[in-house]
Amino acid sequence: MNFLLSELAARVGGEVQGDGGLRIERVAPLEEAGPAELSFFANPRYRAAFEASRAGAVVVEPGVAVPAGRTVLRVRNAYLAFARVSTLFHPPREPVPEIAPQAAVHPSAHVHPSAQVMPFACVGPGAEVGARTILFSGVVLGAEARVGDDCVLYANVNVRERCVVGHRCVLQPGVVIGADGFGFAFDPEGEEGSGPRHFKVPQAGNVVVEDDVEIGANSCVDRATLGSTVVGRGTKIDNLVQLGHNVRVGPLSILCAQVGVSGSTRLGQGVVLAGQVGLAGHLHVGDRATLLAQSGVMNDIPAGETWGGYPARPQRRWMRDEAMLRRLEELSKRVRALEKAGGTAREPEKE
Amino acid sequence: MNFLLSELAARVGGEVQGDGGLRIERVAPLEEAGPAELSFFANPRYRAAFEASRAGAVVVEPGVAVPAGRTVLRVRNAYLAFARVSTLFHPPREPVPEIAPQAAVHPSAHVHPSAQVMPFACVGPGAEVGARTILFSGVVLGAEARVGDDCVLYANVNVRERCVVGHRCVLQPGVVIGADGFGFAFDPEGEEGSGPRHFKVPQAGNVVVEDDVEIGANSCVDRATLGSTVVGRGTKIDNLVQLGHNVRVGPLSILCAQVGVSGSTRLGQGVVLAGQVGLAGHLHVGDRATLLAQSGVMNDIPAGETWGGYPARPQRRWMRDEAMLRRLEELSKRVRALEKAGGTAREPEKE
Amino acid sequence: MNFLLSELAARVGGEVQGDGGLRIERVAPLEEAGPAELSFFANPRYRAAFEASRAGAVVVEPGVAVPAGRTVLRVRNAYLAFARVSTLFHPPREPVPEIAPQAAVHPSAHVHPSAQVMPFACVGPGAEVGARTILFSGVVLGAEARVGDDCVLYANVNVRERCVVGHRCVLQPGVVIGADGFGFAFDPEGEEGSGPRHFKVPQAGNVVVEDDVEIGANSCVDRATLGSTVVGRGTKIDNLVQLGHNVRVGPLSILCAQVGVSGSTRLGQGVVLAGQVGLAGHLHVGDRATLLAQSGVMNDIPAGETWGGYPARPQRRWMRDEAMLRRLEELSKRVRALEKAGGTAREPEKE
Repeated sequence: MNFLLSELAARVGGEVQGDGGLRIERVAPLEEAGPAELSFFANPRYRAAFEASRAGAVVVEPGVAVPAGRTVLRVRNAYLAFARVSTLFHPPREPVPEIAPQAAVHPSAHVHPSAQVMPFACVGPGAEVGARTILFSGVVLGAEARVGDDCVLYANVNVRERCVVGHRCVLQPGVVIGADGFGFAFDPEGEEGSGPRHFKVPQAGNVVVEDDVEIGANSCVDRATLGSTVVGRGTKIDNLVQLGHNVRVGPLSILCAQVGVSGSTRLGQGVVLAGQVGLAGHLHVGDRATLLAQSGVMNDIPAGETWGGYPARPQRRWMRDEAMLRRLEELSKRVRALEKAGGTAREPEKE
Repeated sequence: MNFLLSELAARVGGEVQGDGGLRIERVAPLEEAGPAELSFFANPRYRAAFEASRAGAVVVEPGVAVPAGRTVLRVRNAYLAFARVSTLFHPPREPVPEIAPQAAVHPSAHVHPSAQVMPFACVGPGAEVGARTILFSGVVLGAEARVGDDCVLYANVNVRERCVVGHRCVLQPGVVIGADGFGFAFDPEGEEGSGPRHFKVPQAGNVVVEDDVEIGANSCVDRATLGSTVVGRGTKIDNLVQLGHNVRVGPLSILCAQVGVSGSTRLGQGVVLAGQVGLAGHLHVGDRATLLAQSGVMNDIPAGETWGGYPARPQRRWMRDEAMLRRLEELSKRVRALEKAGGTAREPEKE
Repeated sequence: MNFLLSELAARVGGEVQGDGGLRIERVAPLEEAGPAELSFFANPRYRAAFEASRAGAVVVEPGVAVPAGRTVLRVRNAYLAFARVSTLFHPPREPVPEIAPQAAVHPSAHVHPSAQVMPFACVGPGAEVGARTILFSGVVLGAEARVGDDCVLYANVNVRERCVVGHRCVLQPGVVIGADGFGFAFDPEGEEGSGPRHFKVPQAGNVVVEDDVEIGANSCVDRATLGSTVVGRGTKIDNLVQLGHNVRVGPLSILCAQVGVSGSTRLGQGVVLAGQVGLAGHLHVGDRATLLAQSGVMNDIPAGETWGGYPARPQRRWMRDEAMLRRLEELSKRVRALEKAGGTAREPEKE
């Protein structure tokens, strides 16, 4: 498979500067690309690699300065354009319609004839698998779990009983949908006075993952105590993320790796949570709010705002606090000078 | 299945205010409950939902103000009462005694005849599975692993060789019990002078999970280097938690999601670790101590105290430090004013 | 199996002080060891346990003070010596060459005849498994995945298509190698104007895990967008760690539990990341740099330096900032005193 560079430019609405007749056989990183390969440059950190690259052509934004003689494909939203070109060379996996003889599909389950079920996948009673969906080895669908059309569930994914996954979803390996939420009521007396215990609150709800969601490896979305935990349409979640019971994530949000969202917290639409962010329970994060990496959130976040820090506060406030902290030593010296000058000076401190 | 409201009140030692003859068919969240459903209200954040709810009845604490005409079940420790009522409607899963033909049970293993082993579960040589215990698909029990009575091991749980799980334990999907602890000795020379390496310290101990423990999805409890890593009776652990080798967690503790406890640290009884807390190794956390979310602990924590922050310090100290930090800008201005007034004023700073 | 203490001393280049003719049957922790057992003492926190121990002998560093009458094996790098002795008593698992009848090995896969493949392991088309390598139950190797010689892949490990694992690697249970990197390009218009979406950037690269690497339970190493994500020779990674796409970890590094490294960040040789550290993307961490627990890294880290804090800064700077913060209250009082003395005093603050 290969494409003329001019053809690729036309498909993404860009413009070739240089040799449009170049035949592109692959996409490749700047350092590795050769003369028949297309690469991508945007982050200024990689300018040296861009300039040294042997790539036949490079996708760049309109404004980018380019060394003489280099062929580029100029296009607005270059990253999106590159992604679309790359998809031509790396189309999504097609299912091979088949239920492997070593799979275990309950007689009451409904697997669409165009779906693929690999060895050691297990589809429980009453579960449903949509058209062209692929279940890798070790996938386990609980009783009455439903997975829509055109999904990919990689190895060892578990969708527990009565949970629902929409269309065109991707669950990376090891994802757990619908584990019990973490709910216990402290019982100071225990059964027949047997002493204190944490009494399990039944987690009788489910999880609803809407269409076009992707969830990263070994991430966990807990089932609701009652009702549903919801991951909104088009939201993308990275690896090792934890969503507690009754969390609601709005559409088109981005949750980076190792984020944790405590029970009943609601995120709006287009929210961005950077890596390792933690949110307390019962909060509300407004539409398009951004939380910076590792921030620890104990308050509602207004729509559109960017917060960071631990405890989290508005980004500008956080930056100012950090700057002040850096000048504290100098401030301390100035106070000492004042004390000396004024005669309120105390015994010299030991430092 | 349904119950008279008065009957439910009697079971939990509460009192109906309103129509005790109401027939309750389900429990449901405030927003979704209808006239034959019982709901629950405690968190003041949800008062509006409480007042607008169409629930037939609502479980509340004795002191709570209730709108005229609303039927409530008043009871002390309302959350526990609600949990007990909910359990009537959602009893725990009963095992269906069977070893699935697609399971792999080693001939030397002992599986109690009342236990249930689902397809593609694997029970290793000499392993033991107690009465009424359920092993979901993809569970792997290593050689001589032992799981007690009335346990549920969800999909893809792994209990490695010689580890022990008590009675009435719940291991959510993907839990790993008994992976090797993270122990390497730096060897500057390597095998026959082949150069530096990290030499693996054998992790020859095991893990003991005592009775009535629940462990959340994809959490990991490492086996001890020598001896045992121990999770105490009645302790509840959330998702994606990491317990290092030789950690000892006392009974009735609560470890929230994404907590990490480094090797050889010991937690007392009734300890609470909020989400994403991290503890260094070889520490001791006293009975009933609480660590606030995301705190980073480098010291022993005395019994009964609440610490937070990074690095962690007593909560009151942390709160005071944060408050001071917020007033730093103003303090800086006051020092400037003093300098101007006194004549020690320096060149104006650039800000 | 047992050894004379003098024999063990000779093997590790150490020296017996006391009874070299003692016959050692096991290694054991200080608290549990008996007269035929060898234990280990280094951390001064455990001196009381050392002094009270009933161990027949204890491995210690040359300088350590020893109670009269106690037999010790003195040796430099005592931890390494103890590890080597422990390995004599706990040699690594030997494979039992066999492909279990309940395993699924694709006809086009190559499994070395000395390898062991347990029930419900799945080896995909074109995949390769080296000599003496052990695949536990539930392991899934994708198409054309390659695993070298003398590896152990514990239960439910997934190595996705085209990823490569070197020789003598250990992957603890639930490890995911080669899940899709987290790459989406925002598309404000969507397909045929259907509205905004996050467009998936194909993750067409792979992961290369070099020789002698160990990766902890439920950790994830994402495949590269293009090219390879690399884990260098001899590096050791703990549980629940996340490495993003195109990350490169140099040889002999140590990554503790719950660390997260964002996409395209490169770590040098011998880097140490303590627990729960997070790194932003596109950074460079120099050789032998250390990052303290929970630090949040937004900058390149020079070789050999130790940084900590959130945001991360050089350790000494961080310690000074923390110390200043602790003295802020006192500083505030001194400013108040100056104001009173000077006559610039303002209205008394409410505290």
